[in-house]
Amino acid sequence: MKLKPIGTIHSSYQQATGTPIQSACAVGVKGTVEVFPEYALGLRDLDGFDRIWLLYWFDRAKPAQLIVTPYLDTTPHGVFATRAPCRPNPIGLSVVRLLGVTGHCLDVEGVDVLDNTPLLDIKPYIPAFDWFQTERVGWCGHSQSNSAVADNRFETDEHA
Amino acid sequence: MKLKPIGTIHSSYQQATGTPIQSACAVGVKGTVEVFPEYALGLRDLDGFDRIWLLYWFDRAKPAQLIVTPYLDTTPHGVFATRAPCRPNPIGLSVVRLLGVTGHCLDVEGVDVLDNTPLLDIKPYIPAFDWFQTERVGWCGHSQSNSAVADNRFETDEHA
Repeated sequence: MKLKPIGTIHSSYQQATGTPIQSACAVGVKGTVEVFPEYALGLRDLDGFDRIWLLYWFDRAKPAQLIVTPYLDTTPHGVFATRAPCRPNPIGLSVVRLLGVTGHCLDVEGVDVLDNTPLLDIKPYIPAFDWFQTERVGWCGHSQSNSAVADNRFETDEHA
Repeated sequence: MKLKPIGTIHSSYQQATGTPIQSACAVGVKGTVEVFPEYALGLRDLDGFDRIWLLYWFDRAKPAQLIVTPYLDTTPHGVFATRAPCRPNPIGLSVVRLLGVTGHCLDVEGVDVLDNTPLLDIKPYIPAFDWFQTERVGWCGHSQSNSAVADNRFETDEHA
């Protein structure tokens, strides 16, 4: 199971510290998604969607940790109960607002991703498939922090 | 960028034909997510969440196609404007309801995944991060089909 980048996400964030922890915390933050020209045909009709999922590779995350203390809490949890980047398969998942498509580049808003992050996939955000009622949100329900931006706890030293 | 499975998704679906096309179309459909024991520690506190994201490998999808006719339409679209499995990086994304955690196995409901699909990641479904208002849903807004189950159009012949 090998991945190949299909493009690059460009943002104004060069390091984790100060980067929004989620796209919901990045309202108004713009960026560009460059899809490599050989994949541009796959973008046809994407411009009809308000929002899109970006799947990308956490290329500057520390090696996987099974127990982490997430940005939004002060106690440790299993990594699969968090959205922390240092995962066994470091795949990131963000919803961004699609402002426009120009050739093989997408203008987006709500960017919570480091500059030059390798893009793996784009999927349309479809409320009928992606909206679900929930009653229990685990530790998030009594989260001990309301930080909206990251620090360097999950970042490799060479990029910190 | 190499992936390693962290577990296996077990369902009653042996082939694409008849499998729900999305978890929203699989209400009441139960399955089991087996996380390999070496990753079990990462499940700590996951049981507090109603719903979880599963990321998995479309191991029986045809090679990538940049233009596809999705299950929900009769006209072709760019693959990135669809949720079709034959993607350059064939990563699947489903929300399932978490019914319970027993050791390293999860009982889940809303399963739209083939039996024995390699599991890549689990993330908690967090409405504050995953619910977004949308006004435009592209071709889905005038979809020409309301099929709730798949056929074999995206499945490799050796498994069809």
